[in-house]
Amino acid sequence: MTDRYQTLENQFKRLARIDHARTFLQWDHMVMMPPGGNPSRAEAIAELTALRHELLTAPELGELIEKAAGEAQDPLQQRSLTEMERMYRRAVCLPAELVKAKTLAGSICEHGWRSQRMANDWQGFLANFREVVRLAREEAEARRNAESGRFPTPYDALLDLYCTGDSSIFLAEVFARLKRELPGLVQEVVDRQKSAAVVDLHGHYPIVDQQQLNRELMLCLGFDFNRGRQDVSAHPFSTGGRGDQRITTRYREGEFMEALLATAHETGHAAYEDGLPEEWDGLPIGLARNMCLHESQSLLFEKQLFLSRPFLTSFSATIHGLLPSTARHDGTALWTAATRVQPSYIRVEADEVTYPLHVILRYEIESGLINGSLAAEYIPEIWDAKMTEYLGLSTKDNYRDGCLQDMHWSDGSFGYFPSYTIGALNSAQLSAALRKSQPDWQERLAAGKVDFVRNWLRQNIWSKASSMDSQEIIQAASGEGTSPEFFLNHIRARYLQGLY
Amino acid sequence: MTDRYQTLENQFKRLARIDHARTFLQWDHMVMMPPGGNPSRAEAIAELTALRHELLTAPELGELIEKAAGEAQDPLQQRSLTEMERMYRRAVCLPAELVKAKTLAGSICEHGWRSQRMANDWQGFLANFREVVRLAREEAEARRNAESGRFPTPYDALLDLYCTGDSSIFLAEVFARLKRELPGLVQEVVDRQKSAAVVDLHGHYPIVDQQQLNRELMLCLGFDFNRGRQDVSAHPFSTGGRGDQRITTRYREGEFMEALLATAHETGHAAYEDGLPEEWDGLPIGLARNMCLHESQSLLFEKQLFLSRPFLTSFSATIHGLLPSTARHDGTALWTAATRVQPSYIRVEADEVTYPLHVILRYEIESGLINGSLAAEYIPEIWDAKMTEYLGLSTKDNYRDGCLQDMHWSDGSFGYFPSYTIGALNSAQLSAALRKSQPDWQERLAAGKVDFVRNWLRQNIWSKASSMDSQEIIQAASGEGTSPEFFLNHIRARYLQGLY
Repeated sequence: MTDRYQTLENQFKRLARIDHARTFLQWDHMVMMPPGGNPSRAEAIAELTALRHELLTAPELGELIEKAAGEAQDPLQQRSLTEMERMYRRAVCLPAELVKAKTLAGSICEHGWRSQRMANDWQGFLANFREVVRLAREEAEARRNAESGRFPTPYDALLDLYCTGDSSIFLAEVFARLKRELPGLVQEVVDRQKSAAVVDLHGHYPIVDQQQLNRELMLCLGFDFNRGRQDVSAHPFSTGGRGDQRITTRYREGEFMEALLATAHETGHAAYEDGLPEEWDGLPIGLARNMCLHESQSLLFEKQLFLSRPFLTSFSATIHGLLPSTARHDGTALWTAATRVQPSYIRVEADEVTYPLHVILRYEIESGLINGSLAAEYIPEIWDAKMTEYLGLSTKDNYRDGCLQDMHWSDGSFGYFPSYTIGALNSAQLSAALRKSQPDWQERLAAGKVDFVRNWLRQNIWSKASSMDSQEIIQAASGEGTSPEFFLNHIRARYLQGLY
Repeated sequence: MTDRYQTLENQFKRLARIDHARTFLQWDHMVMMPPGGNPSRAEAIAELTALRHELLTAPELGELIEKAAGEAQDPLQQRSLTEMERMYRRAVCLPAELVKAKTLAGSICEHGWRSQRMANDWQGFLANFREVVRLAREEAEARRNAESGRFPTPYDALLDLYCTGDSSIFLAEVFARLKRELPGLVQEVVDRQKSAAVVDLHGHYPIVDQQQLNRELMLCLGFDFNRGRQDVSAHPFSTGGRGDQRITTRYREGEFMEALLATAHETGHAAYEDGLPEEWDGLPIGLARNMCLHESQSLLFEKQLFLSRPFLTSFSATIHGLLPSTARHDGTALWTAATRVQPSYIRVEADEVTYPLHVILRYEIESGLINGSLAAEYIPEIWDAKMTEYLGLSTKDNYRDGCLQDMHWSDGSFGYFPSYTIGALNSAQLSAALRKSQPDWQERLAAGKVDFVRNWLRQNIWSKASSMDSQEIIQAASGEGTSPEFFLNHIRARYLQGLY
């Protein structure tokens, strides 16, 4: 290890400690803070963000990275330098003025969106949103210029922030395949499910009992409460740091399955973070690879473990114990109700079969917006046309349940949506590999045992952190790069053949 | 406002935002964090502390303060500069090596103390403690040198960190008066209480009901839950920032009065912080003046409001409502039980009459330790002698309930103890002035109304923040500087004359 490299490690660990502070202040903001704390919390987080930016974009740091990269390093340190450089370049390539303008426009647009969505006010939203799009295009150009030719389109420069390593060319291929298959598959599944009896799970489920139930699910999925907590927030999320993973869930008294699915999902995110190798703590190489892998872990816990027939059937005993009014529905009835497929307007409420179509629609629109082939005012029209084509549902004049439903675009987070679906494909592909290596997986899940899953993921995904590219990790774990076939097979197996 | 002064304000506000981060990360550490988060939290807080120290001790900041002090400023800005300079000088006067050695020795000694206290192991403690004392003496000398003659003794340099403005000469006078009066007064009170019937309040009080009860008490004392929270921790404390005061309490199922007293106490601390003027946010002039005033506010809420006969008698209806098994004791019986006086070994469990004697004993020992007239190995012997003299209780060979009972010294916090008793004197003195200005105070408290108290304190104490010296604030509010007579009168009035 050269002196220069060692100095870099110290600097990046310093940044990570500031990030730790931001992370937990933000958690507190979402989960604990009384409203009176808002202004000073916003100021403190902005101060830490500015401090971090100052340290990360110091010209000396750039020089140090460049010089260290010219020295002989072992391959892992070389990789570590690559990831340091990526973090440095991403921060240094945007003019301070642009960052400021983007933050301001995003915050105005997002704030307006909260009421405009409720009021179905597209024109009000559009007035703020045009500036958000303009600045996002500027950002995309600046990021693309900084990478001298690495990104085929401006949109790729934003996509890369979340789907690091997966290009829009790769996405276009994968999504084309899904678009060919999924609408027909959805129809088949819906037709098949028409004949099955489905119980209505609505009822009265006291929140304190649901909390206990969700805690039991987390324990069952291997969550260690000495190294994390679960709380309540308006929208479920997960965050945290070494040894301290924090997930949140929300509860509704009339419903219990939604919270369980969200808990399983966030437990997957937390498992990935907790499984990152300790020796790389504080270094960019030690971070989770990208959101396509992160989402693969959460979806694997949610859809491949919790929602699997053997696991949910077995876990139904716990549900019956803590929510006695569910006891009249056996495990099969609960599983049948939880795997119901139905085209619907709202992405976050969509089942796993229709979900990719919601994402593809958004990908097509946002890539057009950023690459300049689509102007913001045409979004509602295109949204309606695509929803009609993909899911048979028109959103004409219904912005609230159409293009105004998500928060992502309002604050300029373009390029995020694809990770949901690439994550779903990865999770199906990893699960297929895992099942192959553990032929008795159904018996294990039926016995509520998930250690074999965690061990496999730790070895194949978590321990890699950012030491390899996303597609290299998937390939090493499953034998090939991300392919839509595993997901399509999974959908057929679960929803047409009723296999698991 | 000169440009230089404006630059200084910006710099100090920056420090305050880092302090905000440290404050809430520490709160989270004490109240929310799972044990697995310990190492990375400790690193993050150390990083922020180092960052703050770097910014605060930058030579340019010192020059800026000096130059700005030479410019014409309005009196408040002049005062603001004085407080900035105090903060700067306190930080800059200690060599980095000393701070590091002190932190390390304190953390080793405190860690050992946790088990040594339980094991009654004085020799084990002493082995670590000698180094803590040696470094504290070094610190005191360094701080004293930095103030060129302002401190009459080395101990004053540490005392000033907590009792800013109140010297050891002033303390010696006040404590001499208390030592003359209190032992006899304690005896008189104990004799008088012998004849009164006292109910036993031990019972079974579910913690969830106690939480509701303490919440009711906080509401009654004017706490705004939109601007703060209450949680549970191993030791009650209060912390927070603008618009977000956080207090904690602990509960025992067999007892309910202790938690109520602690809640009232911490609510007083929170009220002071919440009442500091918003226009000075982030500036040293906007901070609470010192711990003698801070403790005066908490003790005023605890002993002068909650423990007053009219308030507690009236509040007993709420106690009866939430803890039905207390309903057999009327308000007078509850008040009689809560105002029981009894010499005892443990400071934190002491009543308000004997409490100052616990503090004086500690003050006499710690000032001797720091000024070099006492070596650490003689502490147990002196402790025993003084406990016997002041309270008639020997602690021979009983270190656990004697000199090992407090955490303060183990991490080198010498000079803190006096603020408890100066705070008690201040609270009695302020209450006397307040009662004079509101002759119907008993009726108001009996009606559960405390707004008049909060308004008076806001006007006379909270709004002053650090814009005046401690004794100037007390004088302006009550007509004279801190005097022990008001406290002695309060003890006689409550415990001998049964007046309130």
